Amino acid sequence: MTDTRSPLAPAGFPALPAIAGVTPRIARAHYKSWDRCDLTFITLDEGTAIAGVTTQSQCPSPEVEWCRDALPLGKARALVVNAGNSNAFTGHRGRAAVEAIAARTAGHLGCQPSDIFIASTGVIGVPLPIDKAEAGLDAAFAAAPCSWEEAAATIMTTDTFAKAAATKAIIGDRTVHLIGIIKGSGMIAPDMATMLGFIFTDAAVEPALLQGMLSAANGKSFSCITVDSDTSTSDTVLAFATGKAGNAPLATMDDEGAEAFHAALSDLCLQLAHLVVRDGEGASKFIEIAVEGATSDKSAHTIALSIANSPLVKTAIAGEDANWGRVVMAIGKAGEPAERDQLAIRFGTTQVAEGGLAVEGYDEAPVSAHLKGSEIEIGVNLNLGSGRATVWTCDLTHGYIAINADYRS
Amino acid sequence: MTDTRSPLAPAGFPALPAIAGVTPRIARAHYKSWDRCDLTFITLDEGTAIAGVTTQSQCPSPEVEWCRDALPLGKARALVVNAGNSNAFTGHRGRAAVEAIAARTAGHLGCQPSDIFIASTGVIGVPLPIDKAEAGLDAAFAAAPCSWEEAAATIMTTDTFAKAAATKAIIGDRTVHLIGIIKGSGMIAPDMATMLGFIFTDAAVEPALLQGMLSAANGKSFSCITVDSDTSTSDTVLAFATGKAGNAPLATMDDEGAEAFHAALSDLCLQLAHLVVRDGEGASKFIEIAVEGATSDKSAHTIALSIANSPLVKTAIAGEDANWGRVVMAIGKAGEPAERDQLAIRFGTTQVAEGGLAVEGYDEAPVSAHLKGSEIEIGVNLNLGSGRATVWTCDLTHGYIAINADYRS
Repeated sequence: MTDTRSPLAPAGFPALPAIAGVTPRIARAHYKSWDRCDLTFITLDEGTAIAGVTTQSQCPSPEVEWCRDALPLGKARALVVNAGNSNAFTGHRGRAAVEAIAARTAGHLGCQPSDIFIASTGVIGVPLPIDKAEAGLDAAFAAAPCSWEEAAATIMTTDTFAKAAATKAIIGDRTVHLIGIIKGSGMIAPDMATMLGFIFTDAAVEPALLQGMLSAANGKSFSCITVDSDTSTSDTVLAFATGKAGNAPLATMDDEGAEAFHAALSDLCLQLAHLVVRDGEGASKFIEIAVEGATSDKSAHTIALSIANSPLVKTAIAGEDANWGRVVMAIGKAGEPAERDQLAIRFGTTQVAEGGLAVEGYDEAPVSAHLKGSEIEIGVNLNLGSGRATVWTCDLTHGYIAINADYRS
Repeated sequence: MTDTRSPLAPAGFPALPAIAGVTPRIARAHYKSWDRCDLTFITLDEGTAIAGVTTQSQCPSPEVEWCRDALPLGKARALVVNAGNSNAFTGHRGRAAVEAIAARTAGHLGCQPSDIFIASTGVIGVPLPIDKAEAGLDAAFAAAPCSWEEAAATIMTTDTFAKAAATKAIIGDRTVHLIGIIKGSGMIAPDMATMLGFIFTDAAVEPALLQGMLSAANGKSFSCITVDSDTSTSDTVLAFATGKAGNAPLATMDDEGAEAFHAALSDLCLQLAHLVVRDGEGASKFIEIAVEGATSDKSAHTIALSIANSPLVKTAIAGEDANWGRVVMAIGKAGEPAERDQLAIRFGTTQVAEGGLAVEGYDEAPVSAHLKGSEIEIGVNLNLGSGRATVWTCDLTHGYIAINADYRS
């Protein structure tokens, strides 16, 4: 549907290190009539720890329910990702498909079905065809290992570019590596798009600590991005730690290297989250919204998302218009403590409003120059407390409407 | 900016009865370079009761603050509405303009400044020029009375048609009349658009009862419409009751005719609210979303608004696509109790999903036919309880982006 690479995409796919204990393979399950691979199969050596975060939707897919049930066991041997069919809202038939994939993969690897993690993305309401899934799995089992770029491309639906990032950390005398692949660009028609992110590291980390670190990192990254305020039924981020780097396993935040690893994981999550925004449907501007001076961090986060999700703010940025009145509006509607006469707002580095009105001698020229760029910053100071939050979004353009309305299914 | 009458507009302006004790006048204050009247001045005979509801924004305009302060006194002698400048986010200079308007009008009428109600709509962040307001008022004081159609047109900003409605009720042996004018069509660039609604009746109603009735009616009408989820800093609905019909004044809901009057007021509010949706920016479809079976009415309302505000649902309707998966998504993200496997969804009168999956033998043809019309119905049954709510919205089209992004200020 979208043949054009997003104008906000990075120049190319990054160089990723191999992660010991992780082997990706891809195959064609023919879920759609696409001429491309659509099934990703990633094996993990024994001893791999897992952590995960999933959608807050009250109507999750059976894949999400499967992962939620398996996550507390803390171990993983494989990941299977289907692209082209989300299997969401398919009742007992969808659950049967998930169980069949887990059983077949566990049989192949000689492990428990609960060691198999599964994610699907694509059209909603159509049960994932079990025969296609099984044939695809068999092809993947027999396939040669593939590159990370191939794996990142295979989990895509209507993303316009393959997304990945890498970081590293030092734990004791070992350098550990972290890589991640991700897909998502809003909720894409006629499919239900979904954010699926998968992180792999050779570090040895106990599952409980990995979960704590991932949840914290999620709160500062994936939970801080929005393309169109819509939440998929299938959103999933999983982190796998094989332990092959040979570091002394991290079990608590007091362990040597734990802070460094947490920082590297957080950085990776943020890089991956930004890539999703950079592929936002129809996006022409990457927008950072930083709120400070709120009564709490949570309040700052709510206000920042209210600005980020406002169609009027997003269209103003698309129009390169320094319409700070719309920012005031979005702050006002957030339902959080705000004092009109203490508000300060900046675009880029230029203060536009302070103390409840436009700054004396306001010069729009530097603001207009900032808005002509593709990286936009909006800063808000509520001057009420020390709460702060930063979120990222993209603008709302004709491209979004074209992708989501200009078709007949 | 928008020269084309909304395709969802009614055929013409309705016939409105005169309301004894109410006299509208219009004038040119030249707030913008428009070649039209932009100041509406409506006098109310002594003894007129007032009630009102105002924006929930944490950053309201000084006009809203003025009205909030005056409303508890329960009486009114005049309404002044400025179009072209909302006077919002203008600090002490904005407050001075409101005080000047109230003082000059009270001086003209020989009443208290607190008897004067004021509303403004238009650009944000620019203090309303006091000299223009005063000159405009003087012109209005000297003007001949105007028609309701002229008054309804004068409060418009970028609305594409003048909006009004009328109802009546029998109280004892008297027939009382209610009329209303309203403006608003989303939040319109480069102005901050606003919903301003004014209701006039010749019924005699005590202010406290009128307030209770208006608040209840608001909860089923103005609070149930959304164009783009954005909330103005200036939204205001005021109801004025002159008492000239000579009915025995209504003081409690037990009084004869109180139920009938409440029903007429509620009907009027709903008609006015629908007119705003029918002028939604870029709207090509009027959408009713009815949720039942929720755990409470409030929960149903939250879920209905989550569907109504979802850009993906709104673009699907614009594309005439029977994408019920997006409705599931919007239900799931609402954060309210919902059981995926008990959900039922209909488009028009056709059931599309039941018990958590597509209905057996689902035929898309009648749904597609329904979606080709301009009046769309989405029904959701959560099958959890008896909570219900209905909201109204419009679709999200290229027209919305064109109005809000395709300009430079």
